[in-house]
Amino acid sequence: MWIAELSQRTEVPVATIKYYLREGLLEPGESVGATRSRYDESHIRRLRLIRALVESGGLSLARVRSVLAEVDEESHELHEVLGAVHGALIPNDLTATDESRRRVDALVAQYGWLVYSESQDRVLLAASLDALEKVGYHLDDDLLEAYASAAAQVADAEVSHLPSGDRQQTVEDTVVVTALGGPVLLALRRLAQQDASARRYGISPTTAACAVQAE
Amino acid sequence: MWIAELSQRTEVPVATIKYYLREGLLEPGESVGATRSRYDESHIRRLRLIRALVESGGLSLARVRSVLAEVDEESHELHEVLGAVHGALIPNDLTATDESRRRVDALVAQYGWLVYSESQDRVLLAASLDALEKVGYHLDDDLLEAYASAAAQVADAEVSHLPSGDRQQTVEDTVVVTALGGPVLLALRRLAQQDASARRYGISPTTAACAVQAE
Repeated sequence: MWIAELSQRTEVPVATIKYYLREGLLEPGESVGATRSRYDESHIRRLRLIRALVESGGLSLARVRSVLAEVDEESHELHEVLGAVHGALIPNDLTATDESRRRVDALVAQYGWLVYSESQDRVLLAASLDALEKVGYHLDDDLLEAYASAAAQVADAEVSHLPSGDRQQTVEDTVVVTALGGPVLLALRRLAQQDASARRYGISPTTAACAVQAE
Repeated sequence: MWIAELSQRTEVPVATIKYYLREGLLEPGESVGATRSRYDESHIRRLRLIRALVESGGLSLARVRSVLAEVDEESHELHEVLGAVHGALIPNDLTATDESRRRVDALVAQYGWLVYSESQDRVLLAASLDALEKVGYHLDDDLLEAYASAAAQVADAEVSHLPSGDRQQTVEDTVVVTALGGPVLLALRRLAQQDASARRYGISPTTAACAVQAE
């Protein structure tokens, strides 16, 4: 297909595709004459992957490039690719208090999670606990464990849904689910919060009518 | 306390506090002489609330103001406050395909969730499903239900952990947990993904050593 069709099918503007080509994020197409190139399904898949990474948190091109390099390195194990995706999606400048870091380490040990001791994911959790403490809210152990159990269920489901066999497809799905599954989970949490709140605090007859109507 | 202490205890710079005062997000302190004011615990709590809202996603002051107005409207039920917080934390320009909207409606009905039929939370979920479809990934029903069940557990735990009795405290905790609980959940999901991935794809002896050491 020509670049116009590539653009149409991926909903990525032609100018953006050309930019990715110049930056080396996208392999060149097959040259046809001096100025035209043909593209194939591999370009569609790669553009979708770039889009997933960019849209999930405005990653810089340098970070997108580092994830793609990991995706393309056939010798790397799938587990390493996941680590690279996590690394790219995490802010660079994370800091956390020792207290929260110890709490995270204890939780990881309690659940027996196999996580690198130096993983930035540990710091990210500690930093998010710190953010709560800073606004005067201490997340108690019960609630933290409720989050952890739910997170474990989600992660098990996500990883068990990854295809087996085709490495490239598995890697692409890993990137996409990791990057875009979070917003789905958070959106569902909002809906479930609305429900839990309606049940605890009661809702007015008007609201109840809406809810029933919705069903 | 003077403004310097208020700044120190909340880690919000004096200039920022003065800005919030000018913008009416923070009630003026008690005047002492022509140019000085005294502040109390209520100012600390309010600053923490503003900070939670701002840090959870760079909310505009207009949006922060609308949440605070809801918090302060004593006649509003707690359930309405939650709705207002959700409304403020949601992007303005959400759109979603009819197909995803219908899928969300069916899911809400399946779980019997009490959610306004016109809630923007429904659109947010539909939009996040669309984002996956756009990159060529269809989230199958099994995985969607795994997310939904986990979300329901989290939301139930969050709402049941809200204090009862003191309305102001309940409202503040609602805002904080809604805004800053999500990052905790997502960070835990990353850790759990690392674990699920390590178990499915296996990890090298070096990694295993790290994991054991971490425990």
